[in-house]
Amino acid sequence: MAEDYSTFAAHLLIIKLANHHIKMDTYTKYTEALSEIADIGNATALMHWDLETYMPKKGHARRAQQIGTLSKLAHIKMTDSELKKLVDELVANLPTDLKQASNIKHTARDLKRKTLFDAKFVEDMSRATSEAFFHWQKAKEENDYALYAPFLQKVIDLKRKEAEIVGYEGHPYDALCDEFEPDCTVAELDELFEGVKKDLKPLLDAIKAKPQVNDSFMDQYFNHDEQWDFGIEVLKDMGYDFEGGRQDVSSHPFTINFSATDVRVTTRVSEDTFNEMLWSCIHEGGHALYEQGLPDSEYGLPSGEAVSLGIHESQSRLWENNVGRSLPFWEWKFARLKEVFPTQFEGVSSEDFFKAMNKVQSSLIRVNADELTYHFHILIRYEIEKGIMEGKLNAVDLPAAWNAKYKEYLGVDVPNDSEGVLQDIHWSHGSIGYFPTYSIGSFYAAQFHAAAEKKIGNLDSNNPKPYLKNLLAWLRENVHQYGKLYSSKELCERISGEPLNSKYFMDYAKKKYGVIYGI
Amino acid sequence: MAEDYSTFAAHLLIIKLANHHIKMDTYTKYTEALSEIADIGNATALMHWDLETYMPKKGHARRAQQIGTLSKLAHIKMTDSELKKLVDELVANLPTDLKQASNIKHTARDLKRKTLFDAKFVEDMSRATSEAFFHWQKAKEENDYALYAPFLQKVIDLKRKEAEIVGYEGHPYDALCDEFEPDCTVAELDELFEGVKKDLKPLLDAIKAKPQVNDSFMDQYFNHDEQWDFGIEVLKDMGYDFEGGRQDVSSHPFTINFSATDVRVTTRVSEDTFNEMLWSCIHEGGHALYEQGLPDSEYGLPSGEAVSLGIHESQSRLWENNVGRSLPFWEWKFARLKEVFPTQFEGVSSEDFFKAMNKVQSSLIRVNADELTYHFHILIRYEIEKGIMEGKLNAVDLPAAWNAKYKEYLGVDVPNDSEGVLQDIHWSHGSIGYFPTYSIGSFYAAQFHAAAEKKIGNLDSNNPKPYLKNLLAWLRENVHQYGKLYSSKELCERISGEPLNSKYFMDYAKKKYGVIYGI
Repeated sequence: MAEDYSTFAAHLLIIKLANHHIKMDTYTKYTEALSEIADIGNATALMHWDLETYMPKKGHARRAQQIGTLSKLAHIKMTDSELKKLVDELVANLPTDLKQASNIKHTARDLKRKTLFDAKFVEDMSRATSEAFFHWQKAKEENDYALYAPFLQKVIDLKRKEAEIVGYEGHPYDALCDEFEPDCTVAELDELFEGVKKDLKPLLDAIKAKPQVNDSFMDQYFNHDEQWDFGIEVLKDMGYDFEGGRQDVSSHPFTINFSATDVRVTTRVSEDTFNEMLWSCIHEGGHALYEQGLPDSEYGLPSGEAVSLGIHESQSRLWENNVGRSLPFWEWKFARLKEVFPTQFEGVSSEDFFKAMNKVQSSLIRVNADELTYHFHILIRYEIEKGIMEGKLNAVDLPAAWNAKYKEYLGVDVPNDSEGVLQDIHWSHGSIGYFPTYSIGSFYAAQFHAAAEKKIGNLDSNNPKPYLKNLLAWLRENVHQYGKLYSSKELCERISGEPLNSKYFMDYAKKKYGVIYGI
Repeated sequence: MAEDYSTFAAHLLIIKLANHHIKMDTYTKYTEALSEIADIGNATALMHWDLETYMPKKGHARRAQQIGTLSKLAHIKMTDSELKKLVDELVANLPTDLKQASNIKHTARDLKRKTLFDAKFVEDMSRATSEAFFHWQKAKEENDYALYAPFLQKVIDLKRKEAEIVGYEGHPYDALCDEFEPDCTVAELDELFEGVKKDLKPLLDAIKAKPQVNDSFMDQYFNHDEQWDFGIEVLKDMGYDFEGGRQDVSSHPFTINFSATDVRVTTRVSEDTFNEMLWSCIHEGGHALYEQGLPDSEYGLPSGEAVSLGIHESQSRLWENNVGRSLPFWEWKFARLKEVFPTQFEGVSSEDFFKAMNKVQSSLIRVNADELTYHFHILIRYEIEKGIMEGKLNAVDLPAAWNAKYKEYLGVDVPNDSEGVLQDIHWSHGSIGYFPTYSIGSFYAAQFHAAAEKKIGNLDSNNPKPYLKNLLAWLRENVHQYGKLYSSKELCERISGEPLNSKYFMDYAKKKYGVIYGI
């Protein structure tokens, strides 16, 4: 029925064309322009989702091209002089409505950042990151950092230049991390990571001195479909709305949204371990609850978007670590899990299970790290990135710096660069200043979770539903509903009455791991 | 891992931006422009595919909006003055390369048709079809044609006006059907349908005089997964490439492509009957083989697109009817099917199965009709559409005209308008002139199939693989590879040495149904 498809497409086109004559005020024109840009972005996002889930193998080359075209179109629309004129006009006559005013300021800020760079710079960066990405893949595959180093150096040179173009008050790094976590500075990050070094290191040392927990029962055969169904059940427990989302399989779990009414998660399933799927379900489910909680009426506008990467990560980590890897949660849910996998968990108690899922062990690979050693993976990257931006480290210096820091902070020897400095994609894309948002996410999670529990109480494992319901309602009310109306710092002050700090995380960590390791 | 997604998107954007400086000749600029329009169209197509397959319920409103925005963008790009300038320039200096020259002529023709209509007309048509579509749905649901009639009348008035704007030599209908089947005229259609009336009517009468075939065994329980796997197996038998496509479930089966390297089919499965899924697999598989056989190097260009709706339908019907519902095919494949459903087909022979799947019976609903009575469903619509364009029939006249013709040609009483004149979506969208392409497709299928078998021989049920391989190769060589290089008429002449006619179809029908009904 090719016919029905084409006539439907025609139908939608004509509805759109029929509406083009409506007269609009300036703010409405601005929202229409952003909505159109969002439509292009969301179509692009769907192409990504499909590419990672269902796309047949041979579709790859044309899909990459199609994504490129739509990304370019969105970019052109975003830098269009008509939009700039609208925004300038609105900035000059800022609406009294707080949300409207905030939206305009956000967009003005975005546009300003985009116009800082001349065409030559954009083109140089494009070429440099394209080449660096290509050579990073190759270098990682062949474990040959030298293939990558000259191309990474070009990216580094341009990122240093970018910091100068953007400008900064304190440290050149501030100009870069601002893109991922607005207003975040080295001064603040240094303080946070000093806390990590000062408080987390002794905790890790204490853990190392204790006998390791037993997690051998986690690595057995766990049937695919039964894991899948259990994951769906937990997503429902969390309040994820399957009428406005779905879960599929991809090689790397991710959350993606095409509107607040269509927010999808993916996961991967290994039948050899229970240490994989469920945790990514909960983690991505946390991201997804945020996106589902953003106001659909603010589609395409800053007030309909997540505050920052750090706040986004706070949502996933709060659900995964503070709730999903907590003892009370499994004092409730483990009986159900044992129904699904009775032989695998025979003789295992909810406390055994809780300990196993939270096993702490220094390791090489960031994405597989436990929630404590994780912050040292980030700290290492952060210190290297600062060194890069201060001009103290260049591409050729990174493997040695990397390996030394892994030895110093985590006590592990890096056997090769593929499992070392080449493990992450980020730098090849020029994403310097991104990594700290992961740690920030954990700290926000602990700080928010403490504030939430002050209000809603603790999880009662005999009657957990009210807690789960109230927690989501609390997040909706205190975080999700605002979009970007408040900055992460404002949000944090409103919620906890103090700025972001690592104290709540450390309190949480000491209490939880004190139980697990008997410290 | 929201991070990987966003960095990947950024990566593709920058590749695209990095290429913007390349110097191009006029033809290359033209191909780039069409490729970009195709990218937008294919992103839109993916949104449709997703909407019909996996999209969660609540995503509907935003998805409709997103499709509208992208359709509008493609429309703006297609009517852009820069593209027109390029095409004008190329028309004035037509390349010597035949394919290039043909592409330019096709695009010039498309652009010309688009520029015939002023903004007022486009807007009127948009509004009229939007409203008609809305009221058609309502009227069909409530079985109340009067709700729809005034809105359909507006569409009819505009379609009459459209024919005058487009212009025609013979009949106003020519101006409309040309959009779906280029150069098709009432003179030709009248001749084809005269053949249907003259030759097909007696065959149907002869069939009616014979005892009906037994198809009771088709309506039993057939397990979903086993039907599904068997459908996949038959698609593979046909040569459908699952590395460049996939099959999913939707409420109405369709074929959709995002490039020649990603061509997807959908089907639906009923467990109560074997009369549903497999035939749609084969039908859509035929459409899909065409799209997979188009040259990927001609992406976005007429030379990379199907010739016409009629030729497209010829491919689906050739595979479904001439091959998939033939006796030799099932003399081979029925043994395998019996392995899958041994109890359901106990005591049923391949010939019994062949007869059952080809049961002829007059009915009310076009999409459920057998391949013979089907053409009377089309003839009825064609005669009514001609009457509309001649000004003899208006919206209020259609139910009576419809019911009278169903009585006259098919001998059935139409119990209500929902199952009568309201059954098809087409007119509400202004798609007058579309229906004949279905019959044309059957006639092309028979004519092409006869030519193919002259070359490759008949299907040997003891060794069917060479036939299936050779048939696809023949279609690739004689139809698929050319895209729009040859018109349907030229293609038909090249393949069969004569113009399209219903003789081949009638020969095929008499032979096949002679066996089935013992005539």
